Amino acid sequence: MSIILGLDPGSRVTGIGVLNVDRDQIRHVFHGVISASSEESFPRRISKIGIDFRKVLERFTPDVVVIEQIFLGKNADSAFKLGHARGVCMYESVVAESEVREYATRLVKKRVTGSGAADKLQVQIALERLLGLKLQGSAIDASDALALAYHHAIEMEVERKVNKMHLNNPLRSLR
Amino acid sequence: MSIILGLDPGSRVTGIGVLNVDRDQIRHVFHGVISASSEESFPRRISKIGIDFRKVLERFTPDVVVIEQIFLGKNADSAFKLGHARGVCMYESVVAESEVREYATRLVKKRVTGSGAADKLQVQIALERLLGLKLQGSAIDASDALALAYHHAIEMEVERKVNKMHLNNPLRSLR
Repeated sequence: MSIILGLDPGSRVTGIGVLNVDRDQIRHVFHGVISASSEESFPRRISKIGIDFRKVLERFTPDVVVIEQIFLGKNADSAFKLGHARGVCMYESVVAESEVREYATRLVKKRVTGSGAADKLQVQIALERLLGLKLQGSAIDASDALALAYHHAIEMEVERKVNKMHLNNPLRSLR
Repeated sequence: MSIILGLDPGSRVTGIGVLNVDRDQIRHVFHGVISASSEESFPRRISKIGIDFRKVLERFTPDVVVIEQIFLGKNADSAFKLGHARGVCMYESVVAESEVREYATRLVKKRVTGSGAADKLQVQIALERLLGLKLQGSAIDASDALALAYHHAIEMEVERKVNKMHLNNPLRSLR
């Protein structure tokens, strides 16, 4: 006996279909969808899919999960794969109750190096100076990640200063 | 005090950078990568990222997770979003110890309706007949998911018959 779960994932609606196969006998067990409200933020929607799908897996304990194989061009293909990794990280972030923020690379590079067109090595060198630590020899992905964190830290600082300014001069905040 | 985790996700290497911000003081806490071996299957790689990233989140309990905002064209954008949903479902499938299988839609449609170019409604109607149940009015994503499960069920059946044939006729399997 074997339980097969067919899956049609989407960021709004995810289809679920469950069959039970016993020798040559195929029996319908369940079909339905997981819906994620488009009013929610994208990370929350992705996490709702994860949380609900976990419940579906616990309920049916499928032997196999079957999904559509997707063929895309070379560039779209790598974006698609990146989407998978990103979705999982977003999901876990929301589960861990961390806020999720996104910034464009160009802005991060500009903040760290002064130029939105800086390369990854220039970002690493600028970060070394800004944070006072050695990064050369570290993975470039790790310093890219640090640059994102640094960018947000400065954004927070700026926000705090603006709020403080408004507190000190209430008229200004009303303009 | 605020903990900011910068994240540079990838299906092979995911960069992590952690900063601690206390008033205007920005301190480096950690940087490193999560690597997923390219020898593993894609679902296993995606799940390794999820499992390892969960540990990272538990260790640093960031207030904010910061990721790169990505701009793509309209079509690539929807593929990218789909990638997120798909990645999360793959991850949960592997965590739940289900095998993950992928099939091209064309093959599934051909098996269910006789034509690889059938539309979603034709798939739904054909499935009603094959499984002996009423699907009209159900979400089309759910019947697409059922079609995937059905396709795999038949694949398993074919595989079993081929194996049996080889067992009954050992010479045949040696050819």
